Amino acid sequence: MSLAPAAVSVSAPAISSPVLRFQAVRQQSEALCRPLLPEDTVVQPVIDVSPPKWHLAHTTWFWETFLLREYLPGYQVFHPDYAFLFNSYYNSLGSRVNRADRGTLSRPALAEVYHYRQHIDEHMEQLLALADTLPAACWEVFELGLQHEQQHQELLATDIKYILSTSPLAPAYQTVPPAAPIHSAPPVAWLPVPGGVHRIGFEEEGFCFDNEQAPHDTYVADFELQNRLVTNAEYLEFMEAGGYRDFRYWLGEGWDLVQQQTWEAPLYWVLHHGRWHRFTHHGLQPVNMAAPVTHVSFYEADAYANWRGHRLPTEQEWEIAARHFGATAAGGTFLESGLFDPQPLPADAAPDECHQLLGDAWEWTYSAYHPYPGYQRAAGALGEYNGKFMVNQLVLRGGSCATPESHIRLTYRNFFQADKRWQFTGIRLAR
Amino acid sequence: MSLAPAAVSVSAPAISSPVLRFQAVRQQSEALCRPLLPEDTVVQPVIDVSPPKWHLAHTTWFWETFLLREYLPGYQVFHPDYAFLFNSYYNSLGSRVNRADRGTLSRPALAEVYHYRQHIDEHMEQLLALADTLPAACWEVFELGLQHEQQHQELLATDIKYILSTSPLAPAYQTVPPAAPIHSAPPVAWLPVPGGVHRIGFEEEGFCFDNEQAPHDTYVADFELQNRLVTNAEYLEFMEAGGYRDFRYWLGEGWDLVQQQTWEAPLYWVLHHGRWHRFTHHGLQPVNMAAPVTHVSFYEADAYANWRGHRLPTEQEWEIAARHFGATAAGGTFLESGLFDPQPLPADAAPDECHQLLGDAWEWTYSAYHPYPGYQRAAGALGEYNGKFMVNQLVLRGGSCATPESHIRLTYRNFFQADKRWQFTGIRLAR
Amino acid sequence: MSLAPAAVSVSAPAISSPVLRFQAVRQQSEALCRPLLPEDTVVQPVIDVSPPKWHLAHTTWFWETFLLREYLPGYQVFHPDYAFLFNSYYNSLGSRVNRADRGTLSRPALAEVYHYRQHIDEHMEQLLALADTLPAACWEVFELGLQHEQQHQELLATDIKYILSTSPLAPAYQTVPPAAPIHSAPPVAWLPVPGGVHRIGFEEEGFCFDNEQAPHDTYVADFELQNRLVTNAEYLEFMEAGGYRDFRYWLGEGWDLVQQQTWEAPLYWVLHHGRWHRFTHHGLQPVNMAAPVTHVSFYEADAYANWRGHRLPTEQEWEIAARHFGATAAGGTFLESGLFDPQPLPADAAPDECHQLLGDAWEWTYSAYHPYPGYQRAAGALGEYNGKFMVNQLVLRGGSCATPESHIRLTYRNFFQADKRWQFTGIRLAR
Amino acid sequence: MSLAPAAVSVSAPAISSPVLRFQAVRQQSEALCRPLLPEDTVVQPVIDVSPPKWHLAHTTWFWETFLLREYLPGYQVFHPDYAFLFNSYYNSLGSRVNRADRGTLSRPALAEVYHYRQHIDEHMEQLLALADTLPAACWEVFELGLQHEQQHQELLATDIKYILSTSPLAPAYQTVPPAAPIHSAPPVAWLPVPGGVHRIGFEEEGFCFDNEQAPHDTYVADFELQNRLVTNAEYLEFMEAGGYRDFRYWLGEGWDLVQQQTWEAPLYWVLHHGRWHRFTHHGLQPVNMAAPVTHVSFYEADAYANWRGHRLPTEQEWEIAARHFGATAAGGTFLESGLFDPQPLPADAAPDECHQLLGDAWEWTYSAYHPYPGYQRAAGALGEYNGKFMVNQLVLRGGSCATPESHIRLTYRNFFQADKRWQFTGIRLAR
Repeated sequence: MSLAPAAVSVSAPAISSPVLRFQAVRQQSEALCRPLLPEDTVVQPVIDVSPPKWHLAHTTWFWETFLLREYLPGYQVFHPDYAFLFNSYYNSLGSRVNRADRGTLSRPALAEVYHYRQHIDEHMEQLLALADTLPAACWEVFELGLQHEQQHQELLATDIKYILSTSPLAPAYQTVPPAAPIHSAPPVAWLPVPGGVHRIGFEEEGFCFDNEQAPHDTYVADFELQNRLVTNAEYLEFMEAGGYRDFRYWLGEGWDLVQQQTWEAPLYWVLHHGRWHRFTHHGLQPVNMAAPVTHVSFYEADAYANWRGHRLPTEQEWEIAARHFGATAAGGTFLESGLFDPQPLPADAAPDECHQLLGDAWEWTYSAYHPYPGYQRAAGALGEYNGKFMVNQLVLRGGSCATPESHIRLTYRNFFQADKRWQFTGIRLAR
Repeated sequence: MSLAPAAVSVSAPAISSPVLRFQAVRQQSEALCRPLLPEDTVVQPVIDVSPPKWHLAHTTWFWETFLLREYLPGYQVFHPDYAFLFNSYYNSLGSRVNRADRGTLSRPALAEVYHYRQHIDEHMEQLLALADTLPAACWEVFELGLQHEQQHQELLATDIKYILSTSPLAPAYQTVPPAAPIHSAPPVAWLPVPGGVHRIGFEEEGFCFDNEQAPHDTYVADFELQNRLVTNAEYLEFMEAGGYRDFRYWLGEGWDLVQQQTWEAPLYWVLHHGRWHRFTHHGLQPVNMAAPVTHVSFYEADAYANWRGHRLPTEQEWEIAARHFGATAAGGTFLESGLFDPQPLPADAAPDECHQLLGDAWEWTYSAYHPYPGYQRAAGALGEYNGKFMVNQLVLRGGSCATPESHIRLTYRNFFQADKRWQFTGIRLAR
Repeated sequence: MSLAPAAVSVSAPAISSPVLRFQAVRQQSEALCRPLLPEDTVVQPVIDVSPPKWHLAHTTWFWETFLLREYLPGYQVFHPDYAFLFNSYYNSLGSRVNRADRGTLSRPALAEVYHYRQHIDEHMEQLLALADTLPAACWEVFELGLQHEQQHQELLATDIKYILSTSPLAPAYQTVPPAAPIHSAPPVAWLPVPGGVHRIGFEEEGFCFDNEQAPHDTYVADFELQNRLVTNAEYLEFMEAGGYRDFRYWLGEGWDLVQQQTWEAPLYWVLHHGRWHRFTHHGLQPVNMAAPVTHVSFYEADAYANWRGHRLPTEQEWEIAARHFGATAAGGTFLESGLFDPQPLPADAAPDECHQLLGDAWEWTYSAYHPYPGYQRAAGALGEYNGKFMVNQLVLRGGSCATPESHIRLTYRNFFQADKRWQFTGIRLAR
Repeated sequence: MSLAPAAVSVSAPAISSPVLRFQAVRQQSEALCRPLLPEDTVVQPVIDVSPPKWHLAHTTWFWETFLLREYLPGYQVFHPDYAFLFNSYYNSLGSRVNRADRGTLSRPALAEVYHYRQHIDEHMEQLLALADTLPAACWEVFELGLQHEQQHQELLATDIKYILSTSPLAPAYQTVPPAAPIHSAPPVAWLPVPGGVHRIGFEEEGFCFDNEQAPHDTYVADFELQNRLVTNAEYLEFMEAGGYRDFRYWLGEGWDLVQQQTWEAPLYWVLHHGRWHRFTHHGLQPVNMAAPVTHVSFYEADAYANWRGHRLPTEQEWEIAARHFGATAAGGTFLESGLFDPQPLPADAAPDECHQLLGDAWEWTYSAYHPYPGYQRAAGALGEYNGKFMVNQLVLRGGSCATPESHIRLTYRNFFQADKRWQFTGIRLAR
């Protein structure tokens, strides 16, 4: 992790003290789990989805391992087995539970994990009280710890959704009803972006992940981007035109998957009495046709684009366009909204502005998650944070309705394998 | 299910009323789950081990499906999805959750399952209040429901053990310490059993499963049986003699498994500071060398017998011997003891008596679980109860420390695949 | 291998010299491969089916390993790698090619394998020229070598059939047309067999495998057996009655397989222009409805019996009946006929005789392949010949149209897993 | 396939007539198979490796399907089943043999496949005799057919190598001894390449694949490339430094594979009497330390680069450098040489020139195989030729010792998954 200076961070207002920021992030994780029963926090219905109890403990182990053990004098580990239980993927830190077996462990119980969190929080506050004496490297890892826990908040939101969806009872995570829906989206428009050599990558002040560095020049030709995300209504046209039954639109691997998994709609879509519904954090709900389509794989996003005769943008194009249009978080839906679904654009949204770039849905790009020019893995265990995943994944940009608003930025590079659908992943077309 | 007349049952004292027997059995299932946290009741670490919450609901669904829906006038099912969720393997009753996915379902929550149990119990008591008007067929299924729930009590005991064992924290199910152990077993002795044509199978009064019928003649030659179960000390000799590294003692399939799974001891054995321990319902405990070995597969039981130069008995031999020696439940360890481990024989146990035939540990026989002569599957869904499993499994006899005492009898045929180890399975030698 | 005295063998006329018998058996193996192209001798379309080239080499390695290396003074192995390449399953003899990889090896080439055969044959003849000086143990293994190669002749016939069947070209192994078919079978009849204590197992003179020993008493009740094998016409009734779509007739494992493999007919059956055909050694042929059904698994045999309301015999019943009816090879179809298909009974076959007990089709019994009372594995590598397979397989009796006539006898115990269909396996009903 | 004008082709001297070029390419495929036995042409030891018989037939089917059926009046297909048997992956052309099952088919026999080739060749010559009347589209597909068959020639060379390597007999494909080796490579040097906006992609005259189009601008920063490929000696340093045992150098997926497959050297390397040997087309040979390392996966290439503290080039960098250095085929080793191994550089090779860019070994780049800007899939079945593979593969550049010299060019984009090792894949470092 070669981190940018942490003196001023984009992830919280400049006035926040480290302690307050730490507490706010930690409380947010617990708030997300509050509607759950202990039973919900244990299961792992598919390998990608970790038990909420594990997320709560793993984020805590991260603080303990990278901060307390390194910087708090005299700190003793809470439990000798927790490193084995809650290490995610750091080879540097020894053996660990197989990822596929996280859902087989009922113990430590949820209450015990909260006890662990409390213990770590208290010691973190002791550590932060030593603020003036802590080295810069400690503050860098502190910032990373905040960002790391925010990443797991997004995973909590999406993993909880998957877990509740597996029951035929379709339990609602939230008892409040979803917002009164808007039923039509403004028309789509193509917005031109001038090509040429542009600079991309993070060079502002504040925190970024190492994979956003170093800033560098890149060339793109002139291109156009759509002014908003693809809606459920538009995606349904693809479905109804037989898109899932015509191999010509699909990458070979995607077509194999469509056959094996008998995909015929995005994840969570169910035909119910002849009408498409989606499983949501509010239970089973009719599909809001004006809202952006989500829970599609890269294969589906690409097939949709092919069917329309267009294509997905590259990540370079996306970032250049986002800078060009001066994208901000204003109007976007983020985790803090508690809505847990991207929102339709207001009918009077300006057609010549580029909407929904930040928040709402991660946008699949047709760019491999590879190192930027000049990228260097950090030394030590944190060198495993990002670099070792840089093959066979695709970059997604812009954040989603489950991303904390303070966590996202224009240069942020998210990445998933092409078949993944349980994140709030959507589509924006280019040409 | 062609059941024997249920007028007098072996499964409870004759004085018990049906209502009292029903309540006792139902309470026993719940008592077994009382030490658990909600988290423990959800997970399924391997396909054989079902979540305790599932057992509690499935046994309840059995009463609802086979009794209430059939015989209680005007009964409405508790929830339309529960048949899908809690049907175990009855094709006659429609589709159901894949067995491997039972541990992916956090809902309905444990409290909701207890609510379901209460609802069914109340309606069952309404049904039993109609006693005089109920047909004989209803009483037969009532008896089967009791036996069925008792079978799941044994599974609860063994599945809970497996679930708690997966955590490196080795949590204890029971906080009371295990009984002060006896450290040496009386010497082994061979007891002769006269051969000839003998009658086996159930022909007493009371309940039996259809697979114990019909009683029939069988011929065995003279043989000898050991007076007690093989002890941990004796089994350790096999281990220390390299038994797990010498293919000559093993069936081919067993040897393949030893290699793939790197077996080198019974399930739950762990070398801890140079000494063998076992995971038990009391947590990790030193192996009591005088106690019967348990948690061995058929392959291990057979390899052990081969190494000793002896063999396992057939189920015919076992039953003939048990009748010959007048085996009773006296002195055996059963579920009701709450010990959850087979007990060593007292040092002064009579050497010419055949001990531990009932209770303590299921005894692997070298007999396939095939139909008895004249066996007929029952009509309807209950015809799937036993008959469809009659291939590629081996018969075990005698019950274990996790079997309810009122559930076992000399003619009882338990059955498992040769590789299974999570039941309290042990070894008795023949020659 | 505890073999019976080999002084007089049932496997060839008493007048045959060992050399002549050896040559006859060896030539038979090669004659079976003569219609093949080199390409046909290499492939392994499924794990059960070994390449013919492998059979030719493995049987040769058997002679080299168990006879020449042991008994021919000064013998040097033909090639140091052949033990690795052509050992089938003898752990005693070291590591070997994975069974599933036999079809990946193009070398040694077929011509080289014939060269190996010739080399071994010449040395075997040298060994046999020392006849008077050879110990009894050598002659026992010599006899076993003949029987072993005959077993592989049956596998050659069935494996070649499978190999040729995988091509859509449906090539014929034999260019001669099949015999003019008989189109109706004589009516089925039930023949009573008296029960009681009977002696089974091999106690005649001559060779038998160790698994047929020791002869022992067994008890069966009175029963009836059908006078002939189930025909294709009868089996088609089961198919047309929906037998493959009704779980009630099936063992649980069988039903799972029917679904996964979408079985709807015996192996090799194909609907062609609305009429059932079978792939045979004569290419694709219309099903001869009067001939015995073959290429059914145990699951199908059992389901068929259940659908008829009858059952399969046990192996004890089968042998007792075969002795009772004085079954002989007369009229049966064997490998030497070159017909490679069981033949229909003549229309005037005596209805009160029990036909087709030897030859034509292996008859599935509902008996596990377990050791007989008193069974002992031989010492050394040959102890792995039979004993280690004695679990999770079923006994088949009576030989088939692909069994050498001199190889079969009433006490012969063949064994396969319940799902296997590529042997000439058929059905005879009992009640 | 949007092909460039075929009037003048880079793949053969301008004087060649289409017939002569056709014959030369067809004969080359057969010449490659001439050293094989029929047995060698049938097997498929792993899914990536197709049987040579299949390659011979599939390339023939390609001519039949895309040329003869389209353009030769009155042409009748040779055999109705061959489309099913020899279609590789064209969904547009119907169902086909599963790729994993190509090695299960012994028929049609090799001789029959040669008969098929002869039949098609005769008809192709009839077609080419109509030259003046054939439309431009026909000539485009004709050119593609030549290129397609050349691609399969490279696969023939590498698949044959794999097939022969599976036998412990290590048979030599060529009986001529390998060239007298050069034992030391000239020193490595870094050659600077100026960055900026460069044009890449095919814009010369002649044939190219659609994936090389359209030519477009791209920006790269200044970089340096090594003057030659990494040698076996250099790679051995990585091995001896523990490179295969240190996760820090590896991508996560690569490290998992190293563990699962217990990789510790490139494919085909074997320690023999303490010295590293390689299986080659000349049998097992000591590793020539001066020759370029081959048969490494992308994971190994990347780990090696990380260990050296350098990196792999991108495909943009590679092409820009190749143009910058004016790379030609001179001095490179290609299929036509019959050497089947990359050759060491002469010791006096100029250190300031960039060697081995064309021929010798494919060079892994750290670029995903994604569409170029403006890429369009062709209509019809040939639209499946390249486009549907554009995800989860990496680009390799420059051709290898198994590539026909007339087939390669600077803009050629080869692609394989990151784990593949059976091609002649090597490493060139950048920084």
